[in-house]
Amino acid sequence: MADISDILALADDTVPASLERLFELLRIPSISTDPAYAPECRKAAEWLARQLRDIGFDASVRDTPGHPMVVGHRASKSPGARHVLFYGHYDVQPVDPLALWDNDPFDPAIREAADGARVITGRGTSDDKGQLMTFVEACRAHLETTGDLPCSVTILFEGEEESGSPSLKPFLEANAAELKADCALVCDTGMWDRDTPAISAGLRGLVGEEITVTAADRDLHSGAFGGAAANPVHVLSRIIAGLHDETGRVTLDGFYDGVEETPSQIKAMWDGLGMTPERFLGPIGLSVPAGEKGRSVLELVWARPTAEVNGISGGYAGAGFKTVIAAEASAKISFRLVGRQDPAAIRNSFRAYVRAMLPADCTVAFKEHGGSPAISLPYDSALLGMAKAALADEWPNPPLVIGMGGSIPIVGDFQSMLGMESLLVGFAQSDDRIHSPNEKYDLASFHKGISSWIRILDALS
Amino acid sequence: MADISDILALADDTVPASLERLFELLRIPSISTDPAYAPECRKAAEWLARQLRDIGFDASVRDTPGHPMVVGHRASKSPGARHVLFYGHYDVQPVDPLALWDNDPFDPAIREAADGARVITGRGTSDDKGQLMTFVEACRAHLETTGDLPCSVTILFEGEEESGSPSLKPFLEANAAELKADCALVCDTGMWDRDTPAISAGLRGLVGEEITVTAADRDLHSGAFGGAAANPVHVLSRIIAGLHDETGRVTLDGFYDGVEETPSQIKAMWDGLGMTPERFLGPIGLSVPAGEKGRSVLELVWARPTAEVNGISGGYAGAGFKTVIAAEASAKISFRLVGRQDPAAIRNSFRAYVRAMLPADCTVAFKEHGGSPAISLPYDSALLGMAKAALADEWPNPPLVIGMGGSIPIVGDFQSMLGMESLLVGFAQSDDRIHSPNEKYDLASFHKGISSWIRILDALS
Repeated sequence: MADISDILALADDTVPASLERLFELLRIPSISTDPAYAPECRKAAEWLARQLRDIGFDASVRDTPGHPMVVGHRASKSPGARHVLFYGHYDVQPVDPLALWDNDPFDPAIREAADGARVITGRGTSDDKGQLMTFVEACRAHLETTGDLPCSVTILFEGEEESGSPSLKPFLEANAAELKADCALVCDTGMWDRDTPAISAGLRGLVGEEITVTAADRDLHSGAFGGAAANPVHVLSRIIAGLHDETGRVTLDGFYDGVEETPSQIKAMWDGLGMTPERFLGPIGLSVPAGEKGRSVLELVWARPTAEVNGISGGYAGAGFKTVIAAEASAKISFRLVGRQDPAAIRNSFRAYVRAMLPADCTVAFKEHGGSPAISLPYDSALLGMAKAALADEWPNPPLVIGMGGSIPIVGDFQSMLGMESLLVGFAQSDDRIHSPNEKYDLASFHKGISSWIRILDALS
Repeated sequence: MADISDILALADDTVPASLERLFELLRIPSISTDPAYAPECRKAAEWLARQLRDIGFDASVRDTPGHPMVVGHRASKSPGARHVLFYGHYDVQPVDPLALWDNDPFDPAIREAADGARVITGRGTSDDKGQLMTFVEACRAHLETTGDLPCSVTILFEGEEESGSPSLKPFLEANAAELKADCALVCDTGMWDRDTPAISAGLRGLVGEEITVTAADRDLHSGAFGGAAANPVHVLSRIIAGLHDETGRVTLDGFYDGVEETPSQIKAMWDGLGMTPERFLGPIGLSVPAGEKGRSVLELVWARPTAEVNGISGGYAGAGFKTVIAAEASAKISFRLVGRQDPAAIRNSFRAYVRAMLPADCTVAFKEHGGSPAISLPYDSALLGMAKAALADEWPNPPLVIGMGGSIPIVGDFQSMLGMESLLVGFAQSDDRIHSPNEKYDLASFHKGISSWIRILDALS
């Protein structure tokens, strides 16, 4: 029987072909939040199902009320092999502002970054197409070398992760028996630095809200009505400005219910990582931590809840000037949750706050954009131990167990609906510009990511 | 020699032809603020110059660094006749949001409004093409009936009124000798109601500013950076929210320097007009005066300064949701000025305020969009007396002398640069939806507006 070194060698030798397959997927503009791209989302799903069938999975595209899922199965020939469910998402973020991209976001290429690193450029390279393909390519290497997988593998690819995953829960519920495994593997997170892999043991939750404040029943001339008529941009600005107090805390009633202070030994571990505000914010052109005062930047993004406006619009924003008082103004606002904060309670508190800030003759409409609680994974599980050992064999430095600022709602769903613990391993870098122009994925992340999954599948056997 | 009744009769008889000419002008989408429509602005200017030549003016299109001016002259044969300069603007506001228009904004038509009034629909019908054509048609009626005008008339049509009039001052300066007259006539204002004409004796000034707040050097993932990185939408919202205090007063240092209380006899006259908040705000779907507390709505829009946001944008505002922290956020803000408020001082005070509100690692860029002081015209001039008498002959109710919330910077320029008093007479109605979708102009405003100018020209002779 082939040794793991043979499998790793095959993966090394076939990186160009692996990359060519990844590029095919990256060229499909599967932007899930914009209905105009629905056919592209389906195309990406069909491409992935074909890939899985090519390497010997029983795979199919599954319709949902939104974008389709891809589900694939491949049983291990070893009796009693562990059964893992791998999750990734094939949808990507919008690409605007397009003018800020140096290269076509959907024409991927290998380029040399300013620091000499070779990177794959394009939307979805890091979030999450490049990452999910590390796992597919690891399975391919196992299967092509040995004709088998060390674990039984179920794969679930979603196409709505970037737009609130509306179809995910119903799909998990309807297919729970098919999807249930011993544990889940999720590849949608990052490394600590280029030499140091990371396993994420905490994830912030998310509540998304869109509000539209309406004042007059039409746009008004600001000369004829200015000073007498309500301006919805002012109302919205007061609502947003009032969300935080002078110390950076969120002002909503009950917002901190369920938020606990980070244990001092964890804080001490994080402090030991030497992540100063300068090191964290410097690479993005900033220097002053903007959130709650008196907390480290890692604590702010890993262990504290937030309220952030993700978009605002109202009135005339084109070239030139228009002396108008808008009829309405809108904002998209998200809350990141930690600990046992309740998404429904946060949403209700926010809506009550907004209504209380509203002048008597203005109205507000709310639109819900997803909600999920925060997740904490046990720091001492056997799964974590096996993955740590496998990663330590692949990378220069041993892996860190860290928190995470983002939200991956499915991890909570796996826990609550399928009773599965998740292992969060990913190879993104902090400078990958995910959700931004010029997204990239290090070639080393892709290559050593494949090798990492080869080792982890082996370690879990 | 023909009597004024003959001239009025000719105008009455030729309304259909007058309307056809107006429609030709309305069909030209001369949106001055959007560079894409520059050829249409020139087309409107050329059309107007042709019209003036057709009725016997010596008229031409004059280039400027922006959109062209139209200048026409026609001397009266009466020795010692008064010389008037008529001003109007042929440019119009943008039409977005286009979906809210019931009819094509550039395909004018006569329709019946809900209240039974016959109205001309389309962008520019009321602001200002319909209005300026009342004067052109009045000149035509005089000339066609008598072969002469009772006053020597110079006409100046501008194409940049809706975009800050950048070329106007240099043009007035360079052509002062040609444009100087005994007084100016400006038709860009409204009536008190359908039966009551109005002469505007006070105009608010305007300072336009556009600010762009930049935080990080790229858009950020709100999970990875939220809570630690500055959010420019929050910064901008705090800036806007802080512009007004609890009583609705503008908070900028020195903002009220030069603002005087309205004389009690003027206030009493305004109070006598019976304009309640309900009557003023009800037609636009509002009920609560939003500006400084303790003042009447007429005082708020005629005699008090304002700060209004005319547009705001930042982050993702498309369909769906994007968990992004934007790199930058922008707002267009205008200040309406009264009394002796100094536009330059207001602009400086605003910029100092914005800079003081800025976190240390954020930057701001300012863009100037025009500035002009407020204007007060003497309530007791001979010109005003003659115009009042002429209007009283045309309309069911005698004219009111009122204030005005809007800004017509040229009135100040005529005063300061050409030493001319202006007479502001216009026939717009408060429900004309200028600057908004479904702009209209009453057919009666157009028809009786022509007759009004016929009478005023006669009265000034």
